[in-house]
Amino acid sequence: MLKLPSSPSIVKKNQILYTKHLNNCNYRSTMNLDTYLKEKRKSVDTFLKDYIASKKRDKDCPRKLTEVMEYALMAGGKRVRPVLCIASYEAAGGTSSCILPIATSLELIHTYSLIHDDLPAMDDDDFRRGKPTAHKVYGEAMAILAGDALLTDAFKMVCEAETAPATAVRVLKELSHASGPCGMVGGQAVDIMLEGKKAGKKDVHYIHTHKTGALIRGAVRMGALMAKANPVKLSALTEYGEKMGLAFQIIDDVLDITGTQEELGKTAGADIEKGKNTYPSVYGLEKSQKLAETLLQESMDAIQVLKKKAEPLNAIANYILSRRN
Amino acid sequence: MLKLPSSPSIVKKNQILYTKHLNNCNYRSTMNLDTYLKEKRKSVDTFLKDYIASKKRDKDCPRKLTEVMEYALMAGGKRVRPVLCIASYEAAGGTSSCILPIATSLELIHTYSLIHDDLPAMDDDDFRRGKPTAHKVYGEAMAILAGDALLTDAFKMVCEAETAPATAVRVLKELSHASGPCGMVGGQAVDIMLEGKKAGKKDVHYIHTHKTGALIRGAVRMGALMAKANPVKLSALTEYGEKMGLAFQIIDDVLDITGTQEELGKTAGADIEKGKNTYPSVYGLEKSQKLAETLLQESMDAIQVLKKKAEPLNAIANYILSRRN
Repeated sequence: MLKLPSSPSIVKKNQILYTKHLNNCNYRSTMNLDTYLKEKRKSVDTFLKDYIASKKRDKDCPRKLTEVMEYALMAGGKRVRPVLCIASYEAAGGTSSCILPIATSLELIHTYSLIHDDLPAMDDDDFRRGKPTAHKVYGEAMAILAGDALLTDAFKMVCEAETAPATAVRVLKELSHASGPCGMVGGQAVDIMLEGKKAGKKDVHYIHTHKTGALIRGAVRMGALMAKANPVKLSALTEYGEKMGLAFQIIDDVLDITGTQEELGKTAGADIEKGKNTYPSVYGLEKSQKLAETLLQESMDAIQVLKKKAEPLNAIANYILSRRN
Repeated sequence: MLKLPSSPSIVKKNQILYTKHLNNCNYRSTMNLDTYLKEKRKSVDTFLKDYIASKKRDKDCPRKLTEVMEYALMAGGKRVRPVLCIASYEAAGGTSSCILPIATSLELIHTYSLIHDDLPAMDDDDFRRGKPTAHKVYGEAMAILAGDALLTDAFKMVCEAETAPATAVRVLKELSHASGPCGMVGGQAVDIMLEGKKAGKKDVHYIHTHKTGALIRGAVRMGALMAKANPVKLSALTEYGEKMGLAFQIIDDVLDITGTQEELGKTAGADIEKGKNTYPSVYGLEKSQKLAETLLQESMDAIQVLKKKAEPLNAIANYILSRRN
């Protein structure tokens, strides 16, 4: 099993890159990212609470099942995918709150994927975001079913949004493609199949661009589709999503080695322990970090066409690079 | 644990009811149900084969994952839900082959639910349709992921159908409602939660109308929505679907007691063995059979408004009553 040294200096380096990038930008950054993220997360969390409340009111939905869904949804996620979807929507000119159910549907998909990935038959994780995983609290059967329920309700949430039907169908197609067997589920399947085996660069690229990258790309594209972005903007945002999504997972791999359990909210070093194929296990820690930096720079370059409107997406890319969990 | 006597005479009784019903009908039956079912199943199977072929061609979809999906989809299902969807569509005046992807999406949902239900953490079944279950052949992780993939692709299949977007959204909403936490998944959750405990009439009614009934009701309604059925027809078909769906599961319970392993393609008597709450365990075998007969009669009465066009749906209701597996 590959053993890699921890490198706490990397976090500081990220801060430098962030400052360097902002200095290189054609515009003066006026936004406060913390306030921006807080505001968007609050909207998503409110929508999620309303969703859970509606399930509790529905006599057809078993109370215990809702409890498991709520436990997993409200475990303190960063809402990265919904925030990216909203930021992309706004970057492409969207202004309505109609984006909220679309953005929130991505959190339902992400949460279901975490519940299923954590199962004993899959990654067998006992902790997630510092709390016991759903199957540890409610048992495997209820965890599987809560995952199935969230996956199904993600599509229902988009169907029930106040959106022109033609746009809704495009968004639903994007969501199903990003999260299905040619996207997220495909990535997780290859990840599991190659566990404990030595994978090459091509394999680890497939795993990362699908397991994590596909839904992040999808989130950004769904925002753009909701804003009826023209082909130039859609293409720019797609490139941003693709590169950012890959960088996001590479940094996740790096943090698994350099982070502490307290910072991560889950077992540190778990990837190496399980024989997972990661960018650090294939490229080494320093090169993986460099690759992530390059990808994030390219993701920001791709959306220069959006000018000032690209600012939140640029700030998010830098936040991704400097995050500690 | 409740022990019930097997009753092979019930099958013969069903044949008599079928003949009696046809004699009571306002129209002369001219259709050949065997030919009808064979033809519809063939269309659905062809569509399923094309779907699997497209996954095999897609380099983004892992070969092994497609193999598990194909194994479960092609295990010889009766395609009850797709056939009902097509029959309902035609009964409501639909004539186009556009119904095929909509009907087939129901088989993807049904197959995913079987894969997940058979898992060791759920019903722990080793055989399904006379073949080892997916997790016995490919392992639990791949079975969970193949289920997730089929569930997600069901929505993609509807999105990609040649359908007016407004109709597609209505159909997608119906599909997600029928198969989600207030529908099929909710029924399965209560079924698991009450396993080994003595359930009452209300509980077993909830389990059956949700675990099985909801998707059958949904199948019939999706056909009607695709045909743009007027409110009277939609309401009639909804009642047919509701009553037929409940009767279908009651007969499943009865067959679990009266059928042989060879006929069922799965372990006979498994429900009693597992302490499952079924209609026979609550009402007894004879009363359950009577309830199913009454429900099927009422389901046929509900669609008299469709006159001659109701014939295939009536024939299917009778087929459900007389089936041996």
